[in-house]
Amino acid sequence: MNNPQLNKHGELQHLLTTEGLPVTIVREILDRAATFVDVSDGLEINNAPLLQGKSVFNVFFENSTRTRTTFEIAAKRLSADVVNLNIGASSTSKGETLMDTVDNLCAMHADMFVVRHGQSGAAHFIAKHVDPGIHVINAGDGRHAHPTQALLDMFTIRHFKKEFHNLRVAIVGDVLHSRVARSQISALTTLGVPEVRVIAPKTLLPTLVENLGVKVYHDMARGLRDVDVVLMLRLQNERMQGAALPSAGEYFKYYGLTEEKLARAKQDVIVMHPGPMNRGIEIDSSVADGPNSVILSQVTFGIAVRMAVMSMLAGVSK
Amino acid sequence: MNNPQLNKHGELQHLLTTEGLPVTIVREILDRAATFVDVSDGLEINNAPLLQGKSVFNVFFENSTRTRTTFEIAAKRLSADVVNLNIGASSTSKGETLMDTVDNLCAMHADMFVVRHGQSGAAHFIAKHVDPGIHVINAGDGRHAHPTQALLDMFTIRHFKKEFHNLRVAIVGDVLHSRVARSQISALTTLGVPEVRVIAPKTLLPTLVENLGVKVYHDMARGLRDVDVVLMLRLQNERMQGAALPSAGEYFKYYGLTEEKLARAKQDVIVMHPGPMNRGIEIDSSVADGPNSVILSQVTFGIAVRMAVMSMLAGVSK
Amino acid sequence: MNNPQLNKHGELQHLLTTEGLPVTIVREILDRAATFVDVSDGLEINNAPLLQGKSVFNVFFENSTRTRTTFEIAAKRLSADVVNLNIGASSTSKGETLMDTVDNLCAMHADMFVVRHGQSGAAHFIAKHVDPGIHVINAGDGRHAHPTQALLDMFTIRHFKKEFHNLRVAIVGDVLHSRVARSQISALTTLGVPEVRVIAPKTLLPTLVENLGVKVYHDMARGLRDVDVVLMLRLQNERMQGAALPSAGEYFKYYGLTEEKLARAKQDVIVMHPGPMNRGIEIDSSVADGPNSVILSQVTFGIAVRMAVMSMLAGVSK
Repeated sequence: MNNPQLNKHGELQHLLTTEGLPVTIVREILDRAATFVDVSDGLEINNAPLLQGKSVFNVFFENSTRTRTTFEIAAKRLSADVVNLNIGASSTSKGETLMDTVDNLCAMHADMFVVRHGQSGAAHFIAKHVDPGIHVINAGDGRHAHPTQALLDMFTIRHFKKEFHNLRVAIVGDVLHSRVARSQISALTTLGVPEVRVIAPKTLLPTLVENLGVKVYHDMARGLRDVDVVLMLRLQNERMQGAALPSAGEYFKYYGLTEEKLARAKQDVIVMHPGPMNRGIEIDSSVADGPNSVILSQVTFGIAVRMAVMSMLAGVSK
Repeated sequence: MNNPQLNKHGELQHLLTTEGLPVTIVREILDRAATFVDVSDGLEINNAPLLQGKSVFNVFFENSTRTRTTFEIAAKRLSADVVNLNIGASSTSKGETLMDTVDNLCAMHADMFVVRHGQSGAAHFIAKHVDPGIHVINAGDGRHAHPTQALLDMFTIRHFKKEFHNLRVAIVGDVLHSRVARSQISALTTLGVPEVRVIAPKTLLPTLVENLGVKVYHDMARGLRDVDVVLMLRLQNERMQGAALPSAGEYFKYYGLTEEKLARAKQDVIVMHPGPMNRGIEIDSSVADGPNSVILSQVTFGIAVRMAVMSMLAGVSK
Repeated sequence: MNNPQLNKHGELQHLLTTEGLPVTIVREILDRAATFVDVSDGLEINNAPLLQGKSVFNVFFENSTRTRTTFEIAAKRLSADVVNLNIGASSTSKGETLMDTVDNLCAMHADMFVVRHGQSGAAHFIAKHVDPGIHVINAGDGRHAHPTQALLDMFTIRHFKKEFHNLRVAIVGDVLHSRVARSQISALTTLGVPEVRVIAPKTLLPTLVENLGVKVYHDMARGLRDVDVVLMLRLQNERMQGAALPSAGEYFKYYGLTEEKLARAKQDVIVMHPGPMNRGIEIDSSVADGPNSVILSQVTFGIAVRMAVMSMLAGVSK
C-alpha cells in the first residue's frame, strides 16, 4: 500500500498523522516554518501571500475554537479565503452521511480541508475520498492523531535545543486517551530522539505501550531524572470523574508537574503543554509560568508550522 | 404593480423568486454563470474580483451551514468582504422587530443581503424596505421560494441537455412543503420546458397543483416514463413522523428512486437532488452514485450561479 | 498611576472607557471618523486599506451579533484580517483561566483584540496583560463601559448639532444597569456639555448619581424641557420581570418616549437609542421612526467611529 499522505512524486499530499511521515518531509516542514518566524525583535510571524485565491475550509465536526483559530489565522496570513464550517450541528443532524458531506464540500472546489473529527480515522477516510486537487490536514481525529500539534512541538524543541539526537524527552499524563501523545511519540522517534519516556499511572497508559519504542515510568521522580524536555498532556475533565483516577488532588500529588518534581530534570529543561492547561491538576502555576516553560512559544510556532504545512500542500505537483 | 425584482431599467435589482422573472434575465444569469465555469480540465470555478470592496451579509434567520457556505464561497471568489450573521439566536431573541434588524443592517452599509428565513415572503418584505443601493438575494423563505437552487438546477440541465424546448422533466417527492419545487416549476416553465410532471402521493401535493402547469402522477412507473430529467426532492424528517406518510420504508417502496424505477426514463436521463440526501428513503444509493446522477455537478454549478447573480446585482445601474 | 489607555507618548494605546480619556484624543477620534464618512450622496462609509496585513480578533465572551458585526465590518473596510471567537462556549468551559486564554491569543500574534465580556473591568484586566504590540478595544464590559457606543453617540451629536458647549442633553431610562449611560456621561462631560440630565425612576438610578455631574429628574415632563438631545437607554427584559419595575405598561406610561412627552424638548431635538429598541416600552414607534430620530445614523456613524479607533491604534508608535 502506498503512503496515503504522499503523492506519486513523494511529496506531501495530505497531512494525516506523524506516523509513517518520512523524516525528510518532517524536516522540510520545520525548515519551511522557520522562514515564517522572525526572531529579530521578539518572536514575530511573517505574512506571505502564498495561498492567494485558494480556499481553505475549516471543517470541524467537533468544536474547538482554539484549534480552528490557529488554522484560520495561519491561512489568512497566507492570503487564503477561509470558510469555517461547524458540521456538528448541521448536515449530520439532517441525516446526511459523512461521505455525502465531504463530496459536497469537494464539489464546492475547496483547495484544502482542515478536518477535526471525534472519530479516529476520519481524516484518513476523508483524504481517501476527496478529489485529487484537494488536500486534507488532520486537526485531530478521536484518539488517533493530531499531527500539527506534534510538529509544532518538534519545531519548539528544535528552536530551543537545536538537535534531536542527544535528547531525553518525557511525556507525562494521560497517554491512553491522547492523540497528541501518539503523534509526539512517532515524531520524536522519526527525528532520532534516542530516549522517549512516558510517565503515567497504569490506568492512563495503553496496553503494550512499550511497543511504541518508549520507556515506561509510573513515578515522576524517576521518570523526570535528567530529561531535556517535558511534554505535559492535558487531563480531560471526564477522566477525573471516571474510574481511571481517584481524584484531581490525588492526581496532582503524584503526576502534577511542580517545581520540586521538575528539579530532577536537567537545569535547562524546557516544559511544554498543548493547552488548554488545567492549572493545579496536571501542572502547577509556578511551572507553567516559570523560567523553563515555553508553552506560549508553542502557540506562536504553531501558526508558523500550520503556514508551512499549508504552503507545502498548495505548492505540490498535480 | 412593478416587478419587485427589477429596477426601472428592467435590470435585476433583487433575486427573490423565479416566479415572474423574465426569461431574458434567467438566460443572462445562466450565461454569466457559464463564464465562471472552466470545463477544460474537469469542472473548475474561476475567481474574479468583481465584488472587490463590496460587503455581502449572509443574514440567516434559519440555520443552514451548507447554503450559507455556498454563498460565502461564491462571494469570496468574487473578492467581496463577507459577514455571517446568525440572527436566530440574537437580536430577535432580544425582542427587536425584523424591520429594526433590517434597518440596522442597512445602516451598516452592506451592499448585498443574502437572506434565509423560515417565513414565506420574508425576502420580499426585506427587499421592499432596504435602501435603494442594497440588493437582496433570497436563500430560501419558508415554503415559498429558493431561486438560486432552481437556477443552478436550470444551469445543470442546460449543461447536460443543451436545450429546454424538447425536455420532459419530472419532479418527485414532497412538492407540498418544498420551496425548491415551487421555484423549479416556474423556472422550467419560463425556459420553455414543454412537459413538467410532478410525482407524489396526494398528501404531499398542494391542492390545485395542476394550476401551476404541471401534469400530476401518483405512480412512479408511469410518471417517470420517457423523462429526460428527474428532480428529486428531499423528504423532511418531520414529514416522516407526521400523518402525511405511513413510514419511511413504505415511502421508499412507492416513491424512492431505484434503478428499477429509473429504467422507465430515457436512457440518458439525468438525476438531480438539492441535498442533503436521505439515502434509502427518497433515493437509493445505486442511483445517487450511479452513472445518471449529476448531483455533485449541481453543487459546483451552484457556486457559479451564485457568483453570476451577485456580480449582476453588483453591476446594476443606481 | 499612568492612564492605562495611553502610551508614554500620550497616544491611544487601548480604548477601554471614556472616563479619563483626554479631550484631545476624543476629538481626534471624532475628526478621524469624519474622514471615513462621505455625505456627498446620502451617508456613505469609505473603505481604506489602513489595516492591511493586520489581524483583528473579535473576542466575545458574551454573545452579541450586532456589536460583533459592526466591529467586523469596520475592520474589513480597513482591509484587516478578522477572526471571530465566541469564547463563551469554548475554552472557559474547558476550565482554562481568562489569563491563559488571553496569553494564548497574544501568542497567536493578533494586532488588536475587540473584547466583550460580562464582567466589569475585564477589558482593563486584559489590556494590562497583553504584549506591548497588541491593542485592546472594549466592546462592552459588564455594567462598566461601552466606549465606542458613547463615541459614536458623540459623533452623531456633533454631526447634527455642530457644537457641544451649548447643549442640554437628557439620558432616559435604566441608568443603573447601563454601561452605555456611564460612558455617555463621561464623554459628554469631557466634551464640555454644560448640562447633562438623567431621567429615571429611583430604582433605576445608581446611588450618588449626582456625583457624576448630572442633574437628576424622576419626571419626563420636567426632565425633557428644552433639551437638544435625548439619549434613550434600552430596558433589559430581565429588569421588567424583576422587582425594579411594576410592569412594562406602567414603565411606558411614565418613562416611554412619546411624541407628547417629546414636545417638551426643543423643536429641533434629536432622539438617539443604542439599539436594539423595545418599541412600546421605552420608546414609541412614532418617535423611533419620526423626524427627530437619528437612530439609524448612529449605526452608520458607528462603523466610521470604530474604523477611526482601529486605525489610530494601528498607527500608534511602538
